[in-house]
Amino acid sequence: MYIGVDLGGTNIAVGIVDEEGNLKHKDSTPTKRERQPNEIIGDIKRLILKVIEEYGISKDDINAIGIGIPGLADKKTGEVIYCVNLNWTNIPLKQPLEEELEIPVYIDNDATLAGLAEYEAGVMRGAESGIFITLGTGVGGGIVINGRINSGFNGVGSEIGHMVVGENYYDCSCGKNGCLETFCSATALINYTKKLITEENCKTIIMEKINGNLDNLEGKIIFEAAFEEDELANKAVNRLIKYLAIGIVNLICIIDPEIFVIGGGISKAGNFLLEKLREEVSKNKFYKSLPIGKIVLATLGNEAGIIGAAMLPKQY
Amino acid sequence: MYIGVDLGGTNIAVGIVDEEGNLKHKDSTPTKRERQPNEIIGDIKRLILKVIEEYGISKDDINAIGIGIPGLADKKTGEVIYCVNLNWTNIPLKQPLEEELEIPVYIDNDATLAGLAEYEAGVMRGAESGIFITLGTGVGGGIVINGRINSGFNGVGSEIGHMVVGENYYDCSCGKNGCLETFCSATALINYTKKLITEENCKTIIMEKINGNLDNLEGKIIFEAAFEEDELANKAVNRLIKYLAIGIVNLICIIDPEIFVIGGGISKAGNFLLEKLREEVSKNKFYKSLPIGKIVLATLGNEAGIIGAAMLPKQY
Repeated sequence: MYIGVDLGGTNIAVGIVDEEGNLKHKDSTPTKRERQPNEIIGDIKRLILKVIEEYGISKDDINAIGIGIPGLADKKTGEVIYCVNLNWTNIPLKQPLEEELEIPVYIDNDATLAGLAEYEAGVMRGAESGIFITLGTGVGGGIVINGRINSGFNGVGSEIGHMVVGENYYDCSCGKNGCLETFCSATALINYTKKLITEENCKTIIMEKINGNLDNLEGKIIFEAAFEEDELANKAVNRLIKYLAIGIVNLICIIDPEIFVIGGGISKAGNFLLEKLREEVSKNKFYKSLPIGKIVLATLGNEAGIIGAAMLPKQY
Repeated sequence: MYIGVDLGGTNIAVGIVDEEGNLKHKDSTPTKRERQPNEIIGDIKRLILKVIEEYGISKDDINAIGIGIPGLADKKTGEVIYCVNLNWTNIPLKQPLEEELEIPVYIDNDATLAGLAEYEAGVMRGAESGIFITLGTGVGGGIVINGRINSGFNGVGSEIGHMVVGENYYDCSCGKNGCLETFCSATALINYTKKLITEENCKTIIMEKINGNLDNLEGKIIFEAAFEEDELANKAVNRLIKYLAIGIVNLICIIDPEIFVIGGGISKAGNFLLEKLREEVSKNKFYKSLPIGKIVLATLGNEAGIIGAAMLPKQY
């Protein structure tokens, strides 16, 4: 058995996962991220011991613990290099938990591990190579090649949200211009739609849906309006699709994986998103007559974080 | 012993290479690419037998043959999918040579194999992961991760010249806009310099160097003029550097390799290129305080093609 820990900005989720990637039991607790790192790490430890007890097994039944963090991990030292959500910089995570629990601990980026989950127990299973792309508040990625996740030499591998794919009207929080995240995250979609509503002053059914208050704008509403053939909403969605397709074609020119898996909040737009995306990627592919990797939706949802984290120790 | 074949648009070069990637003997013959594929393949076969004889060994001493082609290879069937230089589409290459020579034959893209050469016998040796970038008529790449070249699931992996890195004033031959190749190849540098000379009409020492004839313009001359602080030449070189740095930072966000190796004609600009490039990459990196892979010049030069091809069978 393995323990998977999904350390998020809102919740800490911990689960017991078997060798094949099946989640057997889970529990969670609020992160309360304004606290000191040692308090949060203390909660992680207590929650791990709690799920072990609840599931009726002992610490000795656990081979190892994997932890997914919403930031950059130093896989060698087990430190959290940087985590904007938690406001952590260079915080040891592996070492204090190993000392207290006497179980090996491994850490990596949460999106990378969600990709690993899809590879071990989801829609990427059996593929030679695959890329998981999560479209949420930001854009994250998980690249698996020949069964190995690509965390990179310095811990920034699979950070595909910061791949430059064009020129944008505002800079990314990382300081660069044109990052995939600034075109394709839910945040980017909302910002661009607001810009269209404010600047172009055209009619859109979105205004009814949000009761005239732009603060109520969500990715889901924009996709709903686009599905209902609202012109402004389609303009915003098509821009997201355009740059996501550029990003995917870039990844084809670099990695050329067998499969792409789209997850995160935006992926809830389902087939409406998928069909537009496949068409746009097809139009842009580098060598027209050559097949390209399949593009599908993620299957594991919220549990991917725990499952992927639990499967991390098997990578070592 | 292995045989490496570098099939180029101008010459076919064949060499005998030992297990460690040392080139022991080589010979070459003009490709005469206007001929039929079977005539060119006949010449490859004869040249292979010739180098074996010249080196005083027998066919039985050869474990396998690797061939680098300037295009897309189907590594499963051993067919050349597409090769613009030779005007080949879906030409069997592995099968006719294996039938006649009775030695296993493997094929892959030439830039990918030049990367493998740097990994096996050059400056990438011992690295966990590395990316070779060749800046010549076009832009090619070779990605090595954990000792394995990345040719991709459909044969277009490592085709980094077609990664979109911005918006350009003309489209790429592949039909897309903004490919790395359209900013950073020698061809792109020459075209942009011509554009500057013609449209901006500013003074440049380049005109003396080419005797006033734009047909004489070469990448080397532009870099020479930039080194001599010519303003127009520096504008052109800095544009190449800007987009090459974006491409490298993109590759860091995706692969995050231990080392980047720059080869091809443009790399002859040496330290002048390297220093500008390192500075620009540093300015653009995603997380400022994090180390990034080394950026160095290729060491193997023209022999990389033969050596990499000869090392290909060891990948299987």
